[in-house]
Amino acid sequence: MSMAAEKQDLQGDSRSRRSGGREARRAMRAAPLADDIRPVRAGLEGGRYGPLSQNDRERIHEAVLTLLETVGFANAIPSCIEALIGVGASYSDDGRIRFPRALVLDTIKKAARNFTLHGQDPKHDMLIQGKRVHYGTAGAAVHLVDVEKREYRESLLQDIYDAARIVDGLDNIHFFQRPMVPRDIPDPLEMDFNTLYACVMGTSKHVGTSFTVRENVKPALEMLYAIAGGEENFRARPFVSNSNCFVVPPMKFAEDACGVLEACVEGGIPILLLSAGQAGATAPAAIAGAVVQAVAEVLAGLVYVNALKPGHPAIFGTWPFVSDLRTGAMSGGSAEQALLTAACAQMAQFYDLPGGSAAGMADSKLPDIQSGFEKGITDVMAGLSGLNLIYESAGMHASLLGFCLESLIIDNDMIGQCLRCVRGIEVTDEALSIDTITEVCLNGPGHYLGNDQTLKLMQTEYFYPAIGDRFSPKEWNERGKPDILQRAIAEKKRILAERFPHHVPRAIDDRLRQRFDGLIHLTRANMGG
Amino acid sequence: MSMAAEKQDLQGDSRSRRSGGREARRAMRAAPLADDIRPVRAGLEGGRYGPLSQNDRERIHEAVLTLLETVGFANAIPSCIEALIGVGASYSDDGRIRFPRALVLDTIKKAARNFTLHGQDPKHDMLIQGKRVHYGTAGAAVHLVDVEKREYRESLLQDIYDAARIVDGLDNIHFFQRPMVPRDIPDPLEMDFNTLYACVMGTSKHVGTSFTVRENVKPALEMLYAIAGGEENFRARPFVSNSNCFVVPPMKFAEDACGVLEACVEGGIPILLLSAGQAGATAPAAIAGAVVQAVAEVLAGLVYVNALKPGHPAIFGTWPFVSDLRTGAMSGGSAEQALLTAACAQMAQFYDLPGGSAAGMADSKLPDIQSGFEKGITDVMAGLSGLNLIYESAGMHASLLGFCLESLIIDNDMIGQCLRCVRGIEVTDEALSIDTITEVCLNGPGHYLGNDQTLKLMQTEYFYPAIGDRFSPKEWNERGKPDILQRAIAEKKRILAERFPHHVPRAIDDRLRQRFDGLIHLTRANMGG
Repeated sequence: MSMAAEKQDLQGDSRSRRSGGREARRAMRAAPLADDIRPVRAGLEGGRYGPLSQNDRERIHEAVLTLLETVGFANAIPSCIEALIGVGASYSDDGRIRFPRALVLDTIKKAARNFTLHGQDPKHDMLIQGKRVHYGTAGAAVHLVDVEKREYRESLLQDIYDAARIVDGLDNIHFFQRPMVPRDIPDPLEMDFNTLYACVMGTSKHVGTSFTVRENVKPALEMLYAIAGGEENFRARPFVSNSNCFVVPPMKFAEDACGVLEACVEGGIPILLLSAGQAGATAPAAIAGAVVQAVAEVLAGLVYVNALKPGHPAIFGTWPFVSDLRTGAMSGGSAEQALLTAACAQMAQFYDLPGGSAAGMADSKLPDIQSGFEKGITDVMAGLSGLNLIYESAGMHASLLGFCLESLIIDNDMIGQCLRCVRGIEVTDEALSIDTITEVCLNGPGHYLGNDQTLKLMQTEYFYPAIGDRFSPKEWNERGKPDILQRAIAEKKRILAERFPHHVPRAIDDRLRQRFDGLIHLTRANMGG
Repeated sequence: MSMAAEKQDLQGDSRSRRSGGREARRAMRAAPLADDIRPVRAGLEGGRYGPLSQNDRERIHEAVLTLLETVGFANAIPSCIEALIGVGASYSDDGRIRFPRALVLDTIKKAARNFTLHGQDPKHDMLIQGKRVHYGTAGAAVHLVDVEKREYRESLLQDIYDAARIVDGLDNIHFFQRPMVPRDIPDPLEMDFNTLYACVMGTSKHVGTSFTVRENVKPALEMLYAIAGGEENFRARPFVSNSNCFVVPPMKFAEDACGVLEACVEGGIPILLLSAGQAGATAPAAIAGAVVQAVAEVLAGLVYVNALKPGHPAIFGTWPFVSDLRTGAMSGGSAEQALLTAACAQMAQFYDLPGGSAAGMADSKLPDIQSGFEKGITDVMAGLSGLNLIYESAGMHASLLGFCLESLIIDNDMIGQCLRCVRGIEVTDEALSIDTITEVCLNGPGHYLGNDQTLKLMQTEYFYPAIGDRFSPKEWNERGKPDILQRAIAEKKRILAERFPHHVPRAIDDRLRQRFDGLIHLTRANMGG
């Protein structure tokens, strides 16, 4: 027992002594804290770090307006051209849509902001506002990282479901965007539908997913409306958003994704407007230039969404990536990536738009010291910058090519630490501790162990890792030198054996299986049902 | 060859074709960059992150002045009392020295700032000014981490020398404070003398060390003056500073360390005024309170140094540590540690004093994913906060109990990444890339591979890891799944077999060995001589 806990026991009041004493109080301390007094939680306010000055942001904004007006976008589909011309964009002989300055500024002014991304369970709702920070998964990895065998294998539908239910129980991962593609399901419709099914059955947190083509959105909506208990219910609390790569950088619309975007807007699904250029390849190598292009691209998407349906919820998804310029390969764990992501957070704040970008991707193939610092540096900088939605923040390796369930569990600890950093330092009369220091030095025991202030702050101000190891070398040795990977493997197995979320009632799942006979590939046996 | 490099080759002008062509240019690109165009270097300007607002800092400052005036310090030695009374401090019946507000403010005004910490080699000089950032080692670990055997063993004198010569060749570790104590040398004088000898022989970078008692400083000075080629030379360019724990928190002078401090001030050695309270144990559990106490303690030390010798170079060494309040054990890798360190950087900046604090300590016992994110998060936040001297930043494990030579090599990569983050984003007309984007989209190839801008920025703007792995899963598999620990072990062995620094001429070493016959324990055979 810690000295602090001991003191608390010694000071227990007589009533608690009578009603159970030590054990009762110990149980109380061991019980989960109420959400509002936990040291970390979703939606903590960041923003104490930003690589760009206000002048930098204004110059980026000006460059963006210039590019949208003079360069514009190629490859718009007819319905996109029609919608954009309808709000004042121009379509020229060179096949490019150009966006007048006034149109862009007007869109920024009127676009949806301060909205909620819902969970199936309202306790997981995320208010996307100001510099409130949320961490989650994302990606389209084609491999699952097998930590025990130290190898990469193709990712499967079951892996997506397993990732979803692991995330469902991890406190510091606030949303679940599908992190892998199911390589066992080659048909695009079956892939899209089952990916979504695996996600929404696996977690009651907010889900993000994508669709290959417009036509695949309809059956998905039917499923979502059924789970929500009706279309109106889903439209009132959409618990799925569409991760939409509407742009092929630089500055071209992606035809299929635009079709999907239109169907999602119509169906009431919030859109993550995702521009994923790669600096030095599909975006400028200059970091500022990569930010300029990403902002221009996402604003074009924002005009598009608002042309289709004014005020439809859309996330400002500037996700510029980084190339290792020696090889052209992507480097998701790099310093340049950390800077790009933080700068994008600042641009979303510049427009007061809900911002999402990527951090936490490791170049390293396995959960090792390299992936640790790559994830830690990029995730903490994203949080400190006040980015609203930090995608890819957990589980990702090999610059988006491999997803690892054990890393998900370890990264939950890391993100808890990031969130504690985001929360920052409380400076109040009480926290400044003049009285406490004076008392301890002049009249007290000369130390703060068991001090009232220490006891008070122990659970509410300090973040403790769930799986991380703080043993002394001696204890560590006596306990057989515990290895964090082995602990994560064991924890993963425990969760996968025990946790089968039932937020979607069996009766609804039965109806879905009846309606989509042959389309649902996850078997009840593999879902604990 | 990368596409960018290929393009450069294709565009090579005719003169270079005549004078050697491809190979010559390749060699040029492979050659080390001049220091001023390297993507990262010592002394980059941080400060874009800070957990404290200006108002927070002013409140902390006020609390500090109050505590120094009302609580003051216990346990001053007679010479300390005499010096402090001489400048206006009071000494009361309760045995405490108290510091009037005006004395503290006057000291802050007149204290040394903007000074250089010298290396034996001037290329390693560090100008400590503003928000210029430098990373280095420190500590008093009692174990060396044996990565191959996964075990902790007692640290030896040879380990200190080995650590010094590894650091000597690592670009991103800018100074070497002794990170371990030699457990094979129990006698305090022999320990102090040989520790210093091992450090200054092992690296020509700035060295920090400590002394057990006042009397041990004299022979050390004699050695340093000899290496410098005379006392004046050393006083003009002191290449060793004294890491001095003059305070036993809370608010008591450490008697032996004060004696050492006085001897070092007299001998011309800069002082690191190190206050190492532990929040929740020897400092308040409230983070703001721990900062208040640390600042108060270091300012008391600053008054003391300036009372002894006005303007003597001293580093504002607020190093508050963190307790895991459940157990009372130190947690160097925690979020709370990252916040404390960054807040201390801001307080040093508040006073425009040269600031040093600790980051990069891992709780984890080995170089694993946990130590990676613990080191990454704390080191990058320290850098972004603009801390002048980031001690403990490389090699440290088990919350200061174990030092690891392989981690030193890996952390050099991590710190390079931190420095790249500190450097930030250049926003110029050229970097905004309007012309580049326009050209690529409207007239160009539709991508930036091989673009002039890409080629130009490839070496000067992007940081590449020396040992970190950016292979794709396929390449990684084909290369036998390289493991970063194995690579670090191999690199360590290579360095230790090859690198025997000879910045101290053999003749001087001969004279030292003659003069200190029997006192020097490192044998020539183990020093490559």
